[in-house]
Amino acid sequence: MKVALAYSGGLDTTVAIRWLQEKYGAEVYTVTVDVGQEEDFKEIEEKAYKSGAVKHYHIDARQKFAEEYVARAIKANALYEGEYPLSSALSRPLIAEEVAKIALREGCDAVAHGCTGKGNDQLRFDATFAATAPDLKILAPVREWNMNREDEIEYALKNGLPINPRKSRFSIDENLWGRSIEAAELEDPWTEPPNEAFKLVKPLEETPNTPEELVIGFTGGIPTSLNGENSTMLEIIGKLNKIGGQHGYGVIDHIEDRVIGLKSREVYEAPAALILIKTHMDLEKMILGRRHLSFKQQIDKTWAEMIYSGLWADPLRKALDAFIDESQKNVTGEVRIKLYKGTMRITGRRAEKAAYAKEIITYSRESLFDQKAGEGFSKLWSLETRLTTLSEK
Amino acid sequence: MKVALAYSGGLDTTVAIRWLQEKYGAEVYTVTVDVGQEEDFKEIEEKAYKSGAVKHYHIDARQKFAEEYVARAIKANALYEGEYPLSSALSRPLIAEEVAKIALREGCDAVAHGCTGKGNDQLRFDATFAATAPDLKILAPVREWNMNREDEIEYALKNGLPINPRKSRFSIDENLWGRSIEAAELEDPWTEPPNEAFKLVKPLEETPNTPEELVIGFTGGIPTSLNGENSTMLEIIGKLNKIGGQHGYGVIDHIEDRVIGLKSREVYEAPAALILIKTHMDLEKMILGRRHLSFKQQIDKTWAEMIYSGLWADPLRKALDAFIDESQKNVTGEVRIKLYKGTMRITGRRAEKAAYAKEIITYSRESLFDQKAGEGFSKLWSLETRLTTLSEK
Amino acid sequence: MKVALAYSGGLDTTVAIRWLQEKYGAEVYTVTVDVGQEEDFKEIEEKAYKSGAVKHYHIDARQKFAEEYVARAIKANALYEGEYPLSSALSRPLIAEEVAKIALREGCDAVAHGCTGKGNDQLRFDATFAATAPDLKILAPVREWNMNREDEIEYALKNGLPINPRKSRFSIDENLWGRSIEAAELEDPWTEPPNEAFKLVKPLEETPNTPEELVIGFTGGIPTSLNGENSTMLEIIGKLNKIGGQHGYGVIDHIEDRVIGLKSREVYEAPAALILIKTHMDLEKMILGRRHLSFKQQIDKTWAEMIYSGLWADPLRKALDAFIDESQKNVTGEVRIKLYKGTMRITGRRAEKAAYAKEIITYSRESLFDQKAGEGFSKLWSLETRLTTLSEK
Amino acid sequence: MKVALAYSGGLDTTVAIRWLQEKYGAEVYTVTVDVGQEEDFKEIEEKAYKSGAVKHYHIDARQKFAEEYVARAIKANALYEGEYPLSSALSRPLIAEEVAKIALREGCDAVAHGCTGKGNDQLRFDATFAATAPDLKILAPVREWNMNREDEIEYALKNGLPINPRKSRFSIDENLWGRSIEAAELEDPWTEPPNEAFKLVKPLEETPNTPEELVIGFTGGIPTSLNGENSTMLEIIGKLNKIGGQHGYGVIDHIEDRVIGLKSREVYEAPAALILIKTHMDLEKMILGRRHLSFKQQIDKTWAEMIYSGLWADPLRKALDAFIDESQKNVTGEVRIKLYKGTMRITGRRAEKAAYAKEIITYSRESLFDQKAGEGFSKLWSLETRLTTLSEK
Repeated sequence: MKVALAYSGGLDTTVAIRWLQEKYGAEVYTVTVDVGQEEDFKEIEEKAYKSGAVKHYHIDARQKFAEEYVARAIKANALYEGEYPLSSALSRPLIAEEVAKIALREGCDAVAHGCTGKGNDQLRFDATFAATAPDLKILAPVREWNMNREDEIEYALKNGLPINPRKSRFSIDENLWGRSIEAAELEDPWTEPPNEAFKLVKPLEETPNTPEELVIGFTGGIPTSLNGENSTMLEIIGKLNKIGGQHGYGVIDHIEDRVIGLKSREVYEAPAALILIKTHMDLEKMILGRRHLSFKQQIDKTWAEMIYSGLWADPLRKALDAFIDESQKNVTGEVRIKLYKGTMRITGRRAEKAAYAKEIITYSRESLFDQKAGEGFSKLWSLETRLTTLSEK
Repeated sequence: MKVALAYSGGLDTTVAIRWLQEKYGAEVYTVTVDVGQEEDFKEIEEKAYKSGAVKHYHIDARQKFAEEYVARAIKANALYEGEYPLSSALSRPLIAEEVAKIALREGCDAVAHGCTGKGNDQLRFDATFAATAPDLKILAPVREWNMNREDEIEYALKNGLPINPRKSRFSIDENLWGRSIEAAELEDPWTEPPNEAFKLVKPLEETPNTPEELVIGFTGGIPTSLNGENSTMLEIIGKLNKIGGQHGYGVIDHIEDRVIGLKSREVYEAPAALILIKTHMDLEKMILGRRHLSFKQQIDKTWAEMIYSGLWADPLRKALDAFIDESQKNVTGEVRIKLYKGTMRITGRRAEKAAYAKEIITYSRESLFDQKAGEGFSKLWSLETRLTTLSEK
Repeated sequence: MKVALAYSGGLDTTVAIRWLQEKYGAEVYTVTVDVGQEEDFKEIEEKAYKSGAVKHYHIDARQKFAEEYVARAIKANALYEGEYPLSSALSRPLIAEEVAKIALREGCDAVAHGCTGKGNDQLRFDATFAATAPDLKILAPVREWNMNREDEIEYALKNGLPINPRKSRFSIDENLWGRSIEAAELEDPWTEPPNEAFKLVKPLEETPNTPEELVIGFTGGIPTSLNGENSTMLEIIGKLNKIGGQHGYGVIDHIEDRVIGLKSREVYEAPAALILIKTHMDLEKMILGRRHLSFKQQIDKTWAEMIYSGLWADPLRKALDAFIDESQKNVTGEVRIKLYKGTMRITGRRAEKAAYAKEIITYSRESLFDQKAGEGFSKLWSLETRLTTLSEK
Repeated sequence: MKVALAYSGGLDTTVAIRWLQEKYGAEVYTVTVDVGQEEDFKEIEEKAYKSGAVKHYHIDARQKFAEEYVARAIKANALYEGEYPLSSALSRPLIAEEVAKIALREGCDAVAHGCTGKGNDQLRFDATFAATAPDLKILAPVREWNMNREDEIEYALKNGLPINPRKSRFSIDENLWGRSIEAAELEDPWTEPPNEAFKLVKPLEETPNTPEELVIGFTGGIPTSLNGENSTMLEIIGKLNKIGGQHGYGVIDHIEDRVIGLKSREVYEAPAALILIKTHMDLEKMILGRRHLSFKQQIDKTWAEMIYSGLWADPLRKALDAFIDESQKNVTGEVRIKLYKGTMRITGRRAEKAAYAKEIITYSRESLFDQKAGEGFSKLWSLETRLTTLSEK
């Protein structure tokens, strides 16, 4: 049996290599996908081979991730439950797809992932695997085994697997769109996350004493410039993570609802994601009408819920994206922000094709607006309220 | 003809007193409703009489406003277009109702307001007037007259009306739930609001160098304590406006869609409103399930859109509130926040009847969760995705 | 071990009695709940004992079903995917609750149902069991066993269980709110359901040649009279099933999406359910405003989706019902229909507290409506359309 | 002044020609657009000239209407308030656009329509006029004049205008997508519409005694064949109106909410529209997944509400259509119906790319479904219900 395994280099997937060999006598092909996590990929490769992989693949998918996944998330203002920018969630279908492609190329019989049975990642891998390579079996050693972290460490030690002493007591997942921090004392929702939980965002007391102003440019809903200079999304995200984090901006701490019905306290740092989504939302308001904005909120919410719950591959997601792409055609312009000690304030925005019409809105004499229209409008606007409340009497 | 006029003491309504006399030969009853604006109400009374009012009423509605209007807004997490806590919008139906009650008591033929024909306030007054006193005529001098600010000043000077040199070049509306700032250079959405626009929120560079921690307690979705001490909503709001503002927190700056189809750049300061809504949202996540939270977002959004567009009196609003009241039964608990130089971070939350279940979610050995359920769940969760994508091939 | 089993008398649950004994050495308490199915309950009791039950319970829940479940469905216009009136779905939480109550009374260790693992009923039983008797184990023999109908018959014959030669080749579920027909040739969605599939609805060619007119009266959203005569819901439903069916009305045939992601061709007959829901929808339009009706559609849709997917016990359902109850306060009036050869036409409706205002709407001279308000309304109604389309140019 | 007027040949617009001359000294260009109404267009032209038009245009837009407007309505399952297939509403933006194009070509200063100020049509004309020819003035004589039908007749008689004795006491609007019937005794919602109100749909007692079976084929969501024979949409609609009407199918009678807040009793006959929308809805269920169908309901509802309320030209409508177009890619297949004495029953459907999977759903031995997945799914599906209800205790 030949198996392609999504390999992160961490405990779960390292243990999985050996387990797949033991249980299925499998030849394991490990696939590591670079979506912007800071890792020693050489070391990961070595660990894979030491643990028994027959072949290791390293795939640099950073640009693809930015342009085909993150760009869609920005246009959809994607914040699950109003908070989480989907950093891990967005990367899973891409990773799964890359693994499935290797599996097909190598003639594997199965694809595998290291997700547990109580999280969301299993949904994301399983759905994309099934949609991309429907004829391959899906294996999920950790879930099948029903193991927890402590059991895994025991197994690794017993089998001489190359696991590192953990860098931190937290459970971390990271890519260019954000970093998630779970477990240890964070499992108590009343406990404040300690400074050492964070890597991108500086403690507020160590941030600069001078505010920093930035201008972010969008074209068709996608970030294309920073401070007037055209850049790739990859560069813009990299810079905003750095600058935002330096100023202490980008921490998220909330109670999150997993698809399987459990609540979990989640802490994230995502300076670039928050800056880009919030400036994008602001810019949209210059261009789209009231009804359009209101309806798009439902599209956006559904988009975020779908990605969160692993349904990237579903035809509904594509239909949502068709709506979004059409709505973004004119979302071109600039937004100016000010960063200072954890605060991000939007201080100005401008757009070529703005529906904002200063000459009508103005309070001064040049206003083109005939107020008498207001009378008729107001009368009929609440006519049904009058008729229904009257009829109650 | 006898007319009851909602009187703020400002230019629009002062001019309106005279105009109602001139045009309709009306006896004007002025009604000023205290919803927490900082004003010299003695001076307002004097202005009313100087401008020709036959009788002036002053009504202290602060507690009613907090307990019957603001409380509903908190339970509904009410932020119009994701940003505006509805400070002015919420107060209008209450003011209109008080004016209509006076009108009925004094045997008036009409009620009147000083709103223009291009804003939202006309909708709020007209709808509530019509629902509360359906037999009275509604007069709206400024709208009927089609005047702008400059015309009004001319008229006031010509008629010797007691108008003040404006305290600020901005157009301000204020109550205990927030303060809105419009006009002048803010009409250019690219211009940053200057420090002098703000009254409640301190410039960031003048804020304390030490963070301040607060614990806000809720009972049934309504704030009932601060730092462990039980308080009225009025007290809590007052304190949070003060403390939040001191730490530079509470500024909102966005492009807002008026009901009539115009976009307008709106700047608000609302420290208490933002703190209470955001902590309430956070607490809800400890208690309500995923589907409940997701659906309530639509209820909340519709609630905010209704209040914004003047439909407080509509039976639909009452049905939304019936949903909300039922959903808030168990929203009891505490949220801890940290304020510092414009930043508000939620750092912890706890609730008696939390659905958060640490003993199941935990990564360590005591977890009660059987991961095998995850396999079946994941398989069926995306079964339709598999069948629909397969059928496409 | 003592187990309370929801017992229908059919193949699945008869086999389950024996299986629970065999596998768990269980004492089985069978519980049959009468929700309006036409059955020989004496015979069912005998079958239970013959199959090994230690005690059999028969519970007449017809009135409770009508007044606490069906009444809610009518107020919610509940049609899953626009078609299915939830007849089986609505009964499951009631049956499960009754079984759980017996289980608690008898001191059982577990509750059990005979649902398969590919349908929706398992979700409905499992959720209600868990919410009503959270400490009891849930057993589901058919699902656990992974058996199909043919396997079960074999097992029954081998074990001498009292199974009837099936009355029909179809799989039937029935109660006062409707009858569902599945399986056999209906599994091919292109095949027309044959006449023998139906019991309540007559073949069109055998229906009377004269139309029949009925007047249905509602009070607060609930049916309370038929042709001017006050009746209980139970009576009204009974009569409408009879009269509607006689006239060939009440067949539903559609492709239905099960929660688990499978599509299934479902055929129902539900004359009373369709008549009551459609007349109720019609009456609501006389009373509720446009925005209210539009929003309630989403409430209703979500209500139907929740009940279909087994979430009756969820707090969200109760919050939806709080909205609905508030919205139904004034839904009182009468609707007249005409039944003829499969057709049901609504021909008139009237309501005490109607928002319908003939004196305003009329085209003739007495109209009270000032058309000039229309001009202002129309201008501002599409102002944002103008500004957004203009800005595109 | 030169004005292009949308001219139907009816009372409102005939009176408008003269009024525009009288009041504005206008040269009036009349434009009649054929969208499938049965009229003597020669006679209409003569009436236009007799009433004073300087030039008359007749435009055959039937194909455009079917392919660019009706086709979108079918894909969107467009039924306003669940009932009205938007026949008149859909035609208005097309008519307005044609009039605006003539106006631009003839160098007119204004466009004009004959709509009243209490209906929806004014919104539809005004919005499309403004979006298509933003620089032209919009005139609406009937609305401006605030006249009712009786006043108009008086004016016509006094001015010797060529008005016909009305063919019927009802107010009729007609095109290929349906026929609306208003006014006279129908204004009492309790009165049954008399037989003479209808033209397309035969009285039930006069319909054939033999059912008729039809098979409708769709390609990408659009009807493309009838009984296996490829046809244009125009032909299919024509045939279905005829056959459906002959069998007494296609009557709609409901209370409708106009945008301006008035309720109105509306009667329609629309055999083709109802047949095509209902068969299209049925076919979609063979192809789209559960989540997709559920979400599309909201898209469809919003689409219908937008078209009803005159917002065809809005960018939001285009974004909704982008969603719909993407969702319809695979909606290809056939639906079989049976028509008989007012009843339309769907009796079968089939599709090439169906997600319906008989081999999994079947109850018999060949089923591929592993029921054990159901257990895990069911457990986690309602886990949040369990945790939230438990926490309440």
